[in-house]
Amino acid sequence: MPAAASFSIQPTSRIGNQPQPKSLANVALTSNSLSFSSQLQTFSLKSLSTTRQLHPQGFSASVRAEINSDTMQVDISLSPRVNSLKPSKTMAITDQATALVQAGVPVIRLAAGEPDFDTPIPIAEAGINAIREGFTRYTPNAGTLELRTAICHKLKEENGISYTPDQILVSNGAKQCILQAVLAVCSPGDEVIIPAPFWVSYPEMARLADATPVILPTSISENFLLDPKVLESTLTEKSRLLILCSPSNPTGSVYPRKLLEQIAEIVAKHPRLLVISDEIYEHIIYAPASHTSFASLPGMWDRTLTVNGFSKAFAMTGWRLGYLAGPKHFVSACGKIQSQSTSGASSISQKAGVAALGLGYAGGEAVANMVKAFRERRDALVKSFGELGGVQISEPQGAFYLFLDFSSYYGSKVDGFGVINGSEALCRYLLDKAHVALVPGDAFGDDTCIRISYAESLPTLEAAVERIKNALVALKPAVPV
Amino acid sequence: MPAAASFSIQPTSRIGNQPQPKSLANVALTSNSLSFSSQLQTFSLKSLSTTRQLHPQGFSASVRAEINSDTMQVDISLSPRVNSLKPSKTMAITDQATALVQAGVPVIRLAAGEPDFDTPIPIAEAGINAIREGFTRYTPNAGTLELRTAICHKLKEENGISYTPDQILVSNGAKQCILQAVLAVCSPGDEVIIPAPFWVSYPEMARLADATPVILPTSISENFLLDPKVLESTLTEKSRLLILCSPSNPTGSVYPRKLLEQIAEIVAKHPRLLVISDEIYEHIIYAPASHTSFASLPGMWDRTLTVNGFSKAFAMTGWRLGYLAGPKHFVSACGKIQSQSTSGASSISQKAGVAALGLGYAGGEAVANMVKAFRERRDALVKSFGELGGVQISEPQGAFYLFLDFSSYYGSKVDGFGVINGSEALCRYLLDKAHVALVPGDAFGDDTCIRISYAESLPTLEAAVERIKNALVALKPAVPV
Repeated sequence: MPAAASFSIQPTSRIGNQPQPKSLANVALTSNSLSFSSQLQTFSLKSLSTTRQLHPQGFSASVRAEINSDTMQVDISLSPRVNSLKPSKTMAITDQATALVQAGVPVIRLAAGEPDFDTPIPIAEAGINAIREGFTRYTPNAGTLELRTAICHKLKEENGISYTPDQILVSNGAKQCILQAVLAVCSPGDEVIIPAPFWVSYPEMARLADATPVILPTSISENFLLDPKVLESTLTEKSRLLILCSPSNPTGSVYPRKLLEQIAEIVAKHPRLLVISDEIYEHIIYAPASHTSFASLPGMWDRTLTVNGFSKAFAMTGWRLGYLAGPKHFVSACGKIQSQSTSGASSISQKAGVAALGLGYAGGEAVANMVKAFRERRDALVKSFGELGGVQISEPQGAFYLFLDFSSYYGSKVDGFGVINGSEALCRYLLDKAHVALVPGDAFGDDTCIRISYAESLPTLEAAVERIKNALVALKPAVPV
Repeated sequence: MPAAASFSIQPTSRIGNQPQPKSLANVALTSNSLSFSSQLQTFSLKSLSTTRQLHPQGFSASVRAEINSDTMQVDISLSPRVNSLKPSKTMAITDQATALVQAGVPVIRLAAGEPDFDTPIPIAEAGINAIREGFTRYTPNAGTLELRTAICHKLKEENGISYTPDQILVSNGAKQCILQAVLAVCSPGDEVIIPAPFWVSYPEMARLADATPVILPTSISENFLLDPKVLESTLTEKSRLLILCSPSNPTGSVYPRKLLEQIAEIVAKHPRLLVISDEIYEHIIYAPASHTSFASLPGMWDRTLTVNGFSKAFAMTGWRLGYLAGPKHFVSACGKIQSQSTSGASSISQKAGVAALGLGYAGGEAVANMVKAFRERRDALVKSFGELGGVQISEPQGAFYLFLDFSSYYGSKVDGFGVINGSEALCRYLLDKAHVALVPGDAFGDDTCIRISYAESLPTLEAAVERIKNALVALKPAVPV
């Protein structure tokens, strides 16, 4: 239940800063809608009709706080930074879909960025051994030397980039690596250049650093790859960071080496410009596509903060383990922030991480088997959606997402929904009618599309496609194809 | 090796922003000093004499970066926020002492805030089961409902405070809870009121939030407890947060209920003032002292963000698990920050946390046994240091630290050290001469004292005291007692 992310199951009448009746303690969910709200929009699952109390304690607590507030006049204002921050929509929708399933709604969840596989056994065993051996104490802030040494070896062998252990910072997931890097190098007023579609957190991280996110659109016809000319014309002296993500979440696009070289040439002309290269999906890639680490390109080592982690390739999302590699000056600064915010990552997870890197080149057979399954699913989905009129597809070359352009279905009016006027409305409609949880493209900076995570079994995916197709029948494509 | 915290083993000539010779790649550690540097000071362990290369790769990488920098003119400036931030000195010294031990120096490490016990077996087994059962995926951002429900039960039963699961946020350690709370409620220019001696991270967290730390000194003769009159005379409209820590790190002081009630009365007069109550050492307390949760005091529930965690009482430092409890409005805001910075804590650790809370009231026998050992050590150390002239002691009532006033030893001049003019110099001297790693009081806002962590076995502690006493002989107390 994602209460703390400010998304929660509530009656449509919100409980919050708005005036509320004084006694809601025993209110039941008599409304036949279930909503999840962000700062921007409200999703409703109209078909859910239940009178049981989903969060009775939550209500009484809210009321309690409010009554007390009347008495005590507590100032409940929040900092501008948190007010301007959007919560992670992918996490919110994932949490919400989980809550719906727990409430008995047969939702197929294709919103999460999480492999459906278990952590490979050798990695799990290493975690178990760490616990058994009492390796359960603080590690150094930057991570154990053992893990940092293994990471250096991996980056040298697989990525062709040389780092020493003091140029590595291990964190509680790659998300923390990226935020800390943005906080460390961006001063107020700096610009963070972000190609769209982008991972939901990048612009919010820029905002947390008092920097300005500058979004560079790409097009599905160019496979969502950044046009170097657009980049060149955007860069100014204020440009401090370019964030690249390849293979990309949400599009699955993979930047070819040639294109990265063109980008590097432009980057090299701008002394202030650094690059965060988010390579978390590196291993989930479909030949003939291949991965190039940005730091391996001529002249880019000094400019690049390479981010990677264990969650995606090794099915280790719950272990919370990622890492940053870069020039010591920057990595040390990130470590200073980490020392005052979380300290080192879980000692147990770090031992598991060492085992993961010991599985062999690119994760060995364990990872190869998962990638094979992802590829089959991609092929099946691309084929299925290809048969559906009005959908534009850029075949993903990596990661486990399809980012499909459904905009030809926008504009229809549906009873009880109003006009389906964008990705948010379409996802709401599909959640309600098809019971499939997807993430609207506007969360990633492209409202024409919807993200489908195919980290689910093939039969489940096929069932989801059928449900989606059936639900779309009511929304005849505005532009027939 | 704490490179990323900007403390590292290096030759005395620093490698960093200063001009360096172009070829350091094969430089050896020929200097007979080993230094660890913070922004403020440099510690040297003069007696270590070695010519082996401790970080040969690190040097070559630094040079590489520098040579490239000459060519590329990369802007290596950092954000003002990271420049003004001090790294955690306790972590730095702990990491450094560990590095010294690995380098063969027989240092007794009494710097860390970490129990020397293993995680109790039922907790460890729960972690192992979580891995075996594949409970290794993302949890909700706020933590599993199971853990948050268990936390609510604990807070009700043990602390007399009522929360619902949506008023709980589980994080990667209590440190993250506190930082997020400060970030969520403090706007630029707000004041964060911090009694000294304070935990090293509080003022830095205020700085990270663009707020102003306001330090309120206490005295050893008052057992380091905050004088309510001092608090009252300090508060203004800018005062947004008061951070209380009881039992206290670094002093071991425990706030009696009566004193907390007096503080609460003052807090209640200031509508803008919220309180972070850091209760991480709650269970490590020596009767007749007893713990009072600030949120349980009349009128304080709405004002208080209660922080606790598993690291200290349950010997779970490496598991990285803490939690925040408070009014939903504030907890949700903290969760929003967390959703964009780290996501939820380790799924494995959360299962272990549930098991920890299942050990019984106040952690049951497992925790009681550890507290008994801590108490014996406290008693032994208080007795030993009591026999040493010129040391002032406030007998700690909780936690596992002694915060001793050694200031009567300041002022002596020692060959090779210069004048021992404060806690930093004394700790440097004791590390070098006695091979005991302690934390200087100035890190905690009180330069008269030194913190000794007694989370070590009694024989080790006794050996450390002997070493310290022997080393102090050379520094005759300036003021004989």
